[in-house]
Order: sequence, then C-alpha cells, then structure tokens
Amino acid sequence: MSYTAPLKDMLFDIEHLANIAEVAKLPGFEDAGLETAQAVLEECARFNQDVIAPLNVEGDRAPSSFKDGKVTTTAGFKDAYAQYAAGGWQGIQHPADFGGQGLPKTIGAACTEMLNSANMSFALCPLLSDGATEALLMAGSDELKATYLEKLVAGEWTGTMNLTEPQAGSDLALVRSRAEPQPDGTYKVFGTKIFITYGEHDMAENIVHLVLARVSGAPEGVKGISLFIVPKFMVNKDGSLGDRNDVHCVSIEHKLGIKASPTAVLQYGDHGGAVGYLVGEENRGLEYMFIMMNVARYGVGLQGIAVAERAYQAAVAYAKERVQSRPVDGSIKASAPIIHHPDVKRMLMTMRAYVEGCRAMASVAAAAYDAAHKHPEADTRKQNEAFYDFLVPLVKGYSTEMSLEVASLGVQVHGGMGFIEETGVAQHLRDAKILTIYEGTTAIQANDLVGRKTMRDGGATAKAIAAQIEKTEAELAKRSSAASASMLKRLKAGREALLDVVDFVVSQAKGSPNAVFSGSVPYLMLAGNVVAGWQLARSLIIAEDLASQNNDVAFMTAKVATARFYAEHILNKAPGYRDSIVDGAESVTALALEAF
Amino acid sequence: MSYTAPLKDMLFDIEHLANIAEVAKLPGFEDAGLETAQAVLEECARFNQDVIAPLNVEGDRAPSSFKDGKVTTTAGFKDAYAQYAAGGWQGIQHPADFGGQGLPKTIGAACTEMLNSANMSFALCPLLSDGATEALLMAGSDELKATYLEKLVAGEWTGTMNLTEPQAGSDLALVRSRAEPQPDGTYKVFGTKIFITYGEHDMAENIVHLVLARVSGAPEGVKGISLFIVPKFMVNKDGSLGDRNDVHCVSIEHKLGIKASPTAVLQYGDHGGAVGYLVGEENRGLEYMFIMMNVARYGVGLQGIAVAERAYQAAVAYAKERVQSRPVDGSIKASAPIIHHPDVKRMLMTMRAYVEGCRAMASVAAAAYDAAHKHPEADTRKQNEAFYDFLVPLVKGYSTEMSLEVASLGVQVHGGMGFIEETGVAQHLRDAKILTIYEGTTAIQANDLVGRKTMRDGGATAKAIAAQIEKTEAELAKRSSAASASMLKRLKAGREALLDVVDFVVSQAKGSPNAVFSGSVPYLMLAGNVVAGWQLARSLIIAEDLASQNNDVAFMTAKVATARFYAEHILNKAPGYRDSIVDGAESVTALALEAF
Repeated sequence: MSYTAPLKDMLFDIEHLANIAEVAKLPGFEDAGLETAQAVLEECARFNQDVIAPLNVEGDRAPSSFKDGKVTTTAGFKDAYAQYAAGGWQGIQHPADFGGQGLPKTIGAACTEMLNSANMSFALCPLLSDGATEALLMAGSDELKATYLEKLVAGEWTGTMNLTEPQAGSDLALVRSRAEPQPDGTYKVFGTKIFITYGEHDMAENIVHLVLARVSGAPEGVKGISLFIVPKFMVNKDGSLGDRNDVHCVSIEHKLGIKASPTAVLQYGDHGGAVGYLVGEENRGLEYMFIMMNVARYGVGLQGIAVAERAYQAAVAYAKERVQSRPVDGSIKASAPIIHHPDVKRMLMTMRAYVEGCRAMASVAAAAYDAAHKHPEADTRKQNEAFYDFLVPLVKGYSTEMSLEVASLGVQVHGGMGFIEETGVAQHLRDAKILTIYEGTTAIQANDLVGRKTMRDGGATAKAIAAQIEKTEAELAKRSSAASASMLKRLKAGREALLDVVDFVVSQAKGSPNAVFSGSVPYLMLAGNVVAGWQLARSLIIAEDLASQNNDVAFMTAKVATARFYAEHILNKAPGYRDSIVDGAESVTALALEAF
Repeated sequence: MSYTAPLKDMLFDIEHLANIAEVAKLPGFEDAGLETAQAVLEECARFNQDVIAPLNVEGDRAPSSFKDGKVTTTAGFKDAYAQYAAGGWQGIQHPADFGGQGLPKTIGAACTEMLNSANMSFALCPLLSDGATEALLMAGSDELKATYLEKLVAGEWTGTMNLTEPQAGSDLALVRSRAEPQPDGTYKVFGTKIFITYGEHDMAENIVHLVLARVSGAPEGVKGISLFIVPKFMVNKDGSLGDRNDVHCVSIEHKLGIKASPTAVLQYGDHGGAVGYLVGEENRGLEYMFIMMNVARYGVGLQGIAVAERAYQAAVAYAKERVQSRPVDGSIKASAPIIHHPDVKRMLMTMRAYVEGCRAMASVAAAAYDAAHKHPEADTRKQNEAFYDFLVPLVKGYSTEMSLEVASLGVQVHGGMGFIEETGVAQHLRDAKILTIYEGTTAIQANDLVGRKTMRDGGATAKAIAAQIEKTEAELAKRSSAASASMLKRLKAGREALLDVVDFVVSQAKGSPNAVFSGSVPYLMLAGNVVAGWQLARSLIIAEDLASQNNDVAFMTAKVATARFYAEHILNKAPGYRDSIVDGAESVTALALEAF
C-alpha cells in the first residue's frame, strides 16, 4: 500500500490560506516563500514515500521488542532514521544557530504530516525530539543548550517527554517522582514513569529524557513540579558519551496500535539515583511542559490528518479496483468498481472533506504560530498568539476525533477485506485510536478550550474568529454559484451556533461549571467543525476564482466540490451540537452515581 | 473483567415495550409469559457470566489456530460449548418437534445478547447454527430435516453459511461455485468459499455447511443460485457419521477482532466433488438465503448491543475506580474517581443511552417477529411482518454503527490504559468493527431499507411507524415533567425529519436513484435513531408512571434520565441527517471519478 503526498492540496493551503507570501515577510523567513515551500515539500515527499512509508506495515507486523533492558526497533527503522537525520529533516523548524534549517511552521507542518502519513510509529521519535528541543530552547541554560541542542537538532540524539506515572495521567498534580539536589548543582532523580514514547530504542546513540519530578520539599500539587534533563548516557565535557545514567527501561507495552513505537516503562534511580539537570527554575516545570505540550498537541493533530489521509488514499485505491454490483443509476450494465456506488462515494467524500478541512485549519494555525513568534509588531504577535492558542485544542481534538471516523470508514470501504490484518487498513484505525488519548485526551483539550482559551478572555478570541467568519460569509453572499450559496447557509448556521455556545460557556462557567464542562467536548467538536468549515469556505471562494481564470480547473473544481460536501454533510451538524450543549447540559450529570 | 447481565433493563423492555403478556397469548407461547422470561434470563445470565464470559479475553489472546487442515479453538471453548449444548441453549427458539424449547424471540433475543456480551467470538458458532436451522426448517425436505435438525438444535452439530467467494462479496450475482447433479439425486459441489465463520473447528463432531452454488446450466446472476447442504462428514442412514466429505479448510484469517472465531477458506470438490443436497428448489437459493439472513442480520444487531453493553460495563467500573483530578464543581476537594467529571459522565451516558435505545428497539422487533409468525389473524401477522422487516436493517445497521462509537468511547474512558491490550477494552472496539461489515455492510442494510422496505410499499410502513410515534408524542404532550417535554420536542423533530426523508426517498427513487442512494446510510441512521428514541420515549412514560407508584424508583428514575439524555444528545441529531439527505444529495456524487 503506497503513499503519495498530497502536494497540491498542501501547497494550495500554504499559498492561499496560510498566505506564505506574508510569512516570508517575517524577519528570518525571507527565503521561505512559495518556491522554497514547493522545493522542500517535493523533496520531503520523495523521502517519505520511498524510505519511510514502506516500513509502516512491517512496523505493525514486527513491532519493537524488549529484552534484557534493551529495545530493538523493527528491522529497517534504524537505517531509515539515519537517513532521516542525515537528510536534515529533524532540524527543519529549528534555529540555524543549532544547525537547523529555521523554516517556518507553515512549511514544517506539511513535512510533519507527510512523515506521519508515511509511518506514524516512526514519526513519533522525531516528534518527541522536537518537544525536547523546544523545551531546551525556551528554558534551558546556555550550558544545557550547548550540550544537547545540536545533537538533538541533528537527530544524532533523540528526546522524550516523561510526565505520566501509574497514578498520574491527566492529573499531573499526582506526580511523585522526586529529585534530590546535589552539592554540584545536579539532582538525583528517582521514580517510575510510564507510557514513555521511544523511552528506549536502538536508533540513536543517546536519549535525552525530559522528566517531571518534585524537588525535595517542594509544594504539593502542580506548583511543586520541576523539569529535568536526564540523559541515558552522561555527556562528557568534550561532547563524547560517558557512563550509563541510572535510568532503565523495565518493559514496553503491548498496544492496540503504533506498535513499532516502543512505549516504555522507565525506572529512575534504582541504583543510586539518575543524574538530572534542572531545566529553567525549580517548580516551574509544568509551565515549561505546557509550552512543549502546545507544540506536541499541534503535532498530534497533524498525526490525525496524516493517518486519515493515508486511510483515504487506501480506500480510494481499493474502491477503484474492487468490482462489485451494478451502479443504481444504470450507467454501467455490469458489476462495476465500487467507487461507482453512491454510498462508497459518500464515505470517500466524508474522508476527503474531513482531511482537507482539518489540513486547512492546521495550515492557518501554523501561519499564526509563525507570526506570533516572528512578527515585528507586538500587537500582531499577540493577536496571532491568541488565534493559534485557540486553534491548538481544535487541531488536536477535532482532527484526531475525525481521524477515528475516517480510519473506520477506510476499513468499511474495504468490506470484509478491511477486517483482515494483511490488507493493512485496520492498522490505521488501531494507530489512530491513540491520538484522541495521548498528549491530553479530547476532554483535556476541551478543558483547555473552555478554561484557558474561552473563559479567560471572556470569549474575546472566539468572537474575533466569529467576526472573521462573518466576513467570509459576506464574500460568499456576493457570489452566484450553488456551492457558495450552500456553504453560506451552513457556515452562517455554524457560526451562530458557535456564538451561542461561547455565550453559554462565558456566562455559565462560574455559576454552573458542571453544565459548561458537560458540553466541553461537544463545544470543541463544534468549534473545530466550524473553523475547518470556514477554511474550506475560503478555499471554495479562491478555487472558484482560480477555476474561472482557467487555473488548474480540475483541481479547483474538486476543491469546490469537497468544500460543498463538507458544508452539506459535516458543517450542517453544528446546530445539533449547540442544542446538545445549551439545552442538554442537565441530562449529562442527572444520573445518580450509584445508578451507573 | 467481569460481565453482569443487565437483567432489569432486559425485563423492563420485555414486559413493558415488547409486551410479553401479549406474546404469551400467541398459540404455542402460552407458557412464555413474564415469569418464564425471568426464569430463563436468570439462568442464562448465570451460565454466561460464569462459563462463557471468562473465556472472552483468552480467545483474543490465544485465538483459534490452523494446522494441517484442522482448526483448534481456544483452550476452554470446546468444553464451554459442550456445556452450552448440554444446557439446551442452542434450541431455545427452535421448535419442540426437533428438541428445541420453542420459546418466543422476545425471550430468545435477550439470551442471544447475553451470550454475545459474554463472548462474541464464541457466540458466532451458535448464531450460524441458528441460521442453518432456520434454512432447513423453511425449505428443507422432510428427509433433510430428519437427518440434520435434531442434531443442530441439540448443538451436537454446528452450521455455517457459505456465500462469499473472492470475487463475490456483497454482489452474490458473481458466485461461481458450481453443483453438478448426480443420478442419485445428490449434487457434486465445487468451488472456493471465503470468510466462513466456524467453517472448521473442533467443538462439534460434524459441521453442516449451507452453500450457495450454481447448478450446471443455471441462469446467470442471482436467479441461477441454489442452496445446498454439504456436511463435513457424511451421515449414515442410522444417523451415525460416515466418510469425510470433500470440503476442506485450507486456511483461516488473521483478523482485527473476533479472533477466537475461526474464519475459514473452504475448498469444495478438490478430490472429486463434495456431496451436496439441494435445499428446496433449484435456483431459489438466494430467496432462502435472504430469509436466513434476515434472522442473522437481526442477530448481528444484537451483537452490536451486546458488545456495547460489555464496553459500557467496563467503562463504568474503571470510571468508578480510577482517581484523577478534582471535580470542576468543587464538590470534592481532592482528586476523585473520574466518574465525577462531567465529560466522563457524558461518555458513559452516551454509551448507556445508545445501548438502552437499541435494546428497546430490538426487543419490540422481536415481539413483532413472534406475532408475525404466530398470530392467528392474517392481517395482524402481515402488519407485524412489515414492522419487523422494516426494523431489521435498523437493528442491524444502527445498533452496529453505534457499537463502534460506544466501544471507542469505552477505550477513551480508560485513557492510556485503554490502548494497552492487557486492559481488555480495545478488544471490544476490534471485535465490534466486523459488525458493520458482515451479514451485509451498513450500506447493504441501507439499500434494503430504501429498496425493499420503503420504495416497495411507497413508504407505507415507514409512515405507519411515524403515525405510531405521533401517538407517543400525544401521550408525552399530556405530561408535565421536564423530561417528557424535552423528549417530546426531540421526538417530534425526529419524526418530522424521518417523514421528510421518506417522502424524498419515495418521490425520487426512480428518477434520481443516485440522489436517494447517496443518502441511504444517513436514512438508515436517522430511522434507527428515531425508532430507538421512540422506544425510549415509551420507556420514559412507563418509567415515570411506575416511579410515581413507588415501583423500583431508583431504576425507573435512571430509565427516565437515560431517555432524556438520548433525546437531548442523540435524537437531536435527526434534523442534521434530514438536511444531509434532502439538501446534500448532489454533493455526494459531484466529484469526478478521476479527481479522487
């Protein structure tokens, strides 16, 4: 089952929605215009299609294995990772100061999507290294930066995030791992961390663990958590590797999906204490981790888009090839490829529309991230930051929830063959199921959306987005096509539903927290649905105009058709969400606990 | 992970919705009143909880295996099956003439649900035997009946359904297996059948294969298909087993779920021809198979309810036990069991409401089946048959689609632990994925709903159901509770949406088949949603009345709360479906084939 990067769609978003020409005006991104994007994406596509994608099925069949404290990754992974690092792909978005290419997220996001479509299990290792890199860039001392960053950015070493403990999952207040200050300024770290992605493996010579732990005497709860670097091998002054540190993998998990990605249980300090280096200041670990997590959460959203894209491609290929039954409209007088059946088209269109909608949303979010970090004007940076921060839970929550539906439809299109593991599409469903869970479940994303992203500013950012949507509606209203009229109807209803819910959240959050949080996930789904639909509305306008100028008419016509499908079959769910949230809050918590 | 049969809810449906007192008035069911139902269900619960349920996880971990033409089932299955047969469970709904207990489907359905909750992989063997039994009862000669029925009903032998071939899945017109008439009246059967559930196993001494094949010279397409019995072992005149027949298992599949259930590739006639016996008349095989399939499809719908129930129970148990984070309403000043979090309640309520709604729908369908077969008046039989036939694609399609959502939520409630296979809940999701595929995919159910069940009678049955729903609305309107008002609002909107769609289907089916079939699955989902919601509306009325009479107040209050949740969070999706179907038909098929 091959993978072909959807370059045209990615470049459409980058050019027309994310507005790369504007991104290229930001200081430091002067060379990162459309031509660069195109060149990077094409090279990235070749690498992922040829080197990484072929290992996806093998990783599922012969996952990483654990023996005597060591993890052996799937055959081929180590070599592929070496090529990945040698190609400079790990540094694509990281600063040139540390050997990176310093490209904007607007371009990097498309590369991340490709890597994850090619092989989500493989891609997790670089994703975690990105997180560790971000944490060090943000809060690491010069010495830590000097010791670790070049190696991480080069992909010579890899990174991990160590948050979870058996009793502390979503609730990091319960973290028990502890760190004892040493006279030399280092710490000794003790504790058990679970669910550590690529916590142990054989693809790189060192692993840089970022670990949450409590310094002795720190306050209880989340305010007493600090962030440490604990390298697998100590690093000598000259940068060479020294002794093995006291962190050891004691087992890896047997999982539903992403089987090639080793999920480790790590034991810190069983032999005297693991040497750890404080990142930033004591007791500010959660704050740093949150910034890292916002990066990682966006990345997980891309994983959702990525696996959905791969599932879509497989389903299309099968639907064009599998011959079964005559078309209901009599257009073919014999059994025909199943893509001729309306319900198969409905499934494929659903998959396609979700993918294009979420990709478009992620693409504009990436551009906002770039502007938030690089724009010379503080106000513009602030606006973009608020927009990006609002979108992160949508990109993470909505794109991953949709990926479950898309991957399930992918199996469904394959019928009985989809249920047979050798076909390879059940893997997409199994892989996708982790996406709504890790880096914060959908409910955790929804709490973030309700709390930090809506209540905190009294709904201002949400309303600013709604005002922008209204402008798109005004543009749609000027047009005469059936597609734009249909989109206008659904987008308007979606925006109004969203505003109703934002008002509900803002007005009820303090007095009726149960009512608001009963609808938190539906609010996230509604907001994601509407924002993705809005981006497809913008796409529709642009694509109609370009088609009328004879500009790649087939592609633009398809873009319009997909946007219209989204409006009529996905965006039209928005009012139902509003009703559930606003009218149905009480029934969520009405049942007595003992009645369950 | 234990299983406790939801006896109270089952008996509520059987007593109040399916109206067992009326069923017990049907000839032959005089002893099958509420007391019998209760006694049978309690005994059935004990057996499934104690004997069958504990094997579920083991079946997933150590599936059936294949070697040298033989299939060895999971350790414990053979013994459990012997107990199942010895307990008389195979014959529960089959005629006393052949050793069965002759109980109504109204009772039998609950038993089937329990068996499938306990262990879906195990339950498939009896389910297929039921299908073979039905086919023989309906169309078999006296000789075939005499030879096979008692053994099948006793569970000494098991049955299979052989439809699928590599090129013929949903499209049975493409069946190529052939049968050559022999001078002695038997046939020699040749061909390859795939996806044959329990096509080979070690739990019974003989396997009775029901096989679709073409008699030499038969017409092309579906009108040239006949149905045959091909026993694994020939049966001597005295009922003892004779020679091995020429049907052989060449492999079993490696599947996403239901791993303990062997899915066989069967080769017929490689050594001279498998001896087959014609069932009924030549070329009427598909017709017989369809009646069998209506039985089997209903059974698969129960499997959806069953696996969803099990997933729900596991999620509730975990949510009560797993401590994580403080409740948002400040009701507990420390980390609390996650069931205190509104979004966890929302997930649990969604699971619960789907299960109760679909169970209620299946229960009234069962009662209609009983009346359709046993009522002394032809008109009543006919009405009930039409009602049952309309409900079968809903029970099959809607209950299985919801089971995917419920099983996925079950994993979600478990967070990261849900993704670890040892937790056991990922199995529910993997198992459930087959349900929307086998015995006709959801699209095939939807074609049946549109074609045979709606167009054929010009929407008369659908409208008759809508008229009944309107009566329930009138009852709701007389009541004063908030729950009944909320239910009324959503039920009315749902019924109106359903009627709009029925009008659309009936009026457009001939002129615009693509438009109608573009919305066939959404129509099925809408109809299932509304009919299940209607049954919960009836439940709400009954439960409110019983509670007001101090009758099991806690249970009745929970029933009302669940019905209201269904109305506000599930039934409220109905108008969205209508919009998709009626306004969105064009966009489903608009994209050019080459644009995919």
